[in-house]
Amino acid sequence: MRDFSADHRWLSINTATLRGAGPLDAIIDACVRHDIRAISPWRDQVAGIGLARATQLVRSNSLELSGYCRGGMFPAIDAGGRQAALDDNRRAVDEAKTLDAACLVLVVGGLPGALAGPAQSKDLFAARNDVRDGIAATLEYARAAGMPLAIEPLHPMYAADRACVNTLEQALDLCDVLDPARTGALGVAVDVYHVWWDPKLEAQIARAGRQRLLAFHVCDWLVPTRDMLNDRGMMGDGVIELGRIRRWVESTGFGGYSEVEIFSSENWWKRPADEVLATCIERHRSAV
Amino acid sequence: MRDFSADHRWLSINTATLRGAGPLDAIIDACVRHDIRAISPWRDQVAGIGLARATQLVRSNSLELSGYCRGGMFPAIDAGGRQAALDDNRRAVDEAKTLDAACLVLVVGGLPGALAGPAQSKDLFAARNDVRDGIAATLEYARAAGMPLAIEPLHPMYAADRACVNTLEQALDLCDVLDPARTGALGVAVDVYHVWWDPKLEAQIARAGRQRLLAFHVCDWLVPTRDMLNDRGMMGDGVIELGRIRRWVESTGFGGYSEVEIFSSENWWKRPADEVLATCIERHRSAV
Repeated sequence: MRDFSADHRWLSINTATLRGAGPLDAIIDACVRHDIRAISPWRDQVAGIGLARATQLVRSNSLELSGYCRGGMFPAIDAGGRQAALDDNRRAVDEAKTLDAACLVLVVGGLPGALAGPAQSKDLFAARNDVRDGIAATLEYARAAGMPLAIEPLHPMYAADRACVNTLEQALDLCDVLDPARTGALGVAVDVYHVWWDPKLEAQIARAGRQRLLAFHVCDWLVPTRDMLNDRGMMGDGVIELGRIRRWVESTGFGGYSEVEIFSSENWWKRPADEVLATCIERHRSAV
Repeated sequence: MRDFSADHRWLSINTATLRGAGPLDAIIDACVRHDIRAISPWRDQVAGIGLARATQLVRSNSLELSGYCRGGMFPAIDAGGRQAALDDNRRAVDEAKTLDAACLVLVVGGLPGALAGPAQSKDLFAARNDVRDGIAATLEYARAAGMPLAIEPLHPMYAADRACVNTLEQALDLCDVLDPARTGALGVAVDVYHVWWDPKLEAQIARAGRQRLLAFHVCDWLVPTRDMLNDRGMMGDGVIELGRIRRWVESTGFGGYSEVEIFSSENWWKRPADEVLATCIERHRSAV
């Protein structure tokens, strides 16, 4: 396993970690000040300053993108909704390509309508079929564009409203169906927050292997967790054995970034960017 | 599948559903008023009126117990803690036997200390070993007493503090290890709230089969869920396809009670017992 204690060259900052720090150009400035080599931006943050300016800032600062967040949200109640999702995913692929991201992360979506309001359907099977078909269609486009797609299994507590792919095993089953040749065009994003509890995690990480393990995200699970979405912890402040999981991940041959993604509306989002980044760096070296 | 629409003879009330309705004798009175034939009481509620009086009320009202809640909480940081848990589980078996419960439900416990305060360990593997050993020891005692143990896999969002058995597959793997002969002394409690999201649910329910499917609990998953513990929904108010899951359960030959267990500090616990029970009965007939 790589030694992270001496520097932070393998630290990437998911820009959602700095939701409280203003627009993306300010976030990039802060990352550059802290000698951070890679980021993973969200589409709304890119749109906030414009794709052209985001691309220019990424290039002029020689930043890498460990990923681009996010495509997905495939399930819909009708054909029009499904087509709109496909169109939006093509735009996400294009943006990821313009930004030269390592992969486009897919948060696949849950029951139609449930993220914005009442669920329009309770049929989890139909939602999962929409996800399979949506990824298949997007994969065709993404493959032509040379942009790998990373399915991110989300914690089961998000099954209704955000993602009905909830275990790494389920995500890899999808990869087997949609890219049986393991071409590298389709894989997974392993975020410890979503999968740390899974008794099959070690085996499924090994199953993913280097070709399908496209991204590795870290944060921590706080006890107690006070909010189901926005109470993620800084690495070391919770109960996840990060070193153990990173060892499994690197056993596959993974040598990419360890991407910090912390949604924390009541804590880290309220602190200055420099404090958040200094803490990320310190914990990357001591706790990841 | 049984037709529940005409009556509520297969409805059981988990007494946690009536946490706002006073002591257990008042809860039993309310259930009897509504012609409910079965309950599943919690140990603290039984202790509140005394085991002898609880037993007398159960018998004089000809109530059945679809289960007794709960044993478990096996992981501990040291041998003394583990022994204390075993002792407590023996008392729970004895109480369940006195009350003539159909099974003792096991909420197996998470990381040592995490339910009461800071986790004393992050080692989920050690916790799972404690669970396996704790169930093994308790099973010996429970088998002699003739009290079946029902492992309840809890939703993964409770992995840290309440139960590190988080899928039905994992619970059944434990059953395979500890009771390979499928004697009926060890099985599972399937609560839709904990398992509805699981892509392997249908297959694992079939795997459990009649001998290991000892209890079936219903409520609903609300969107949004505002509290990780106490915001369960009334059947029909959320997104779980209850009928589909009950069909899978009954396909095993299960012919027991459908036990309503709703933790709802801000809604149902604030309503009068008669309103809660009338609604349970109506939804049992229309939504389960």
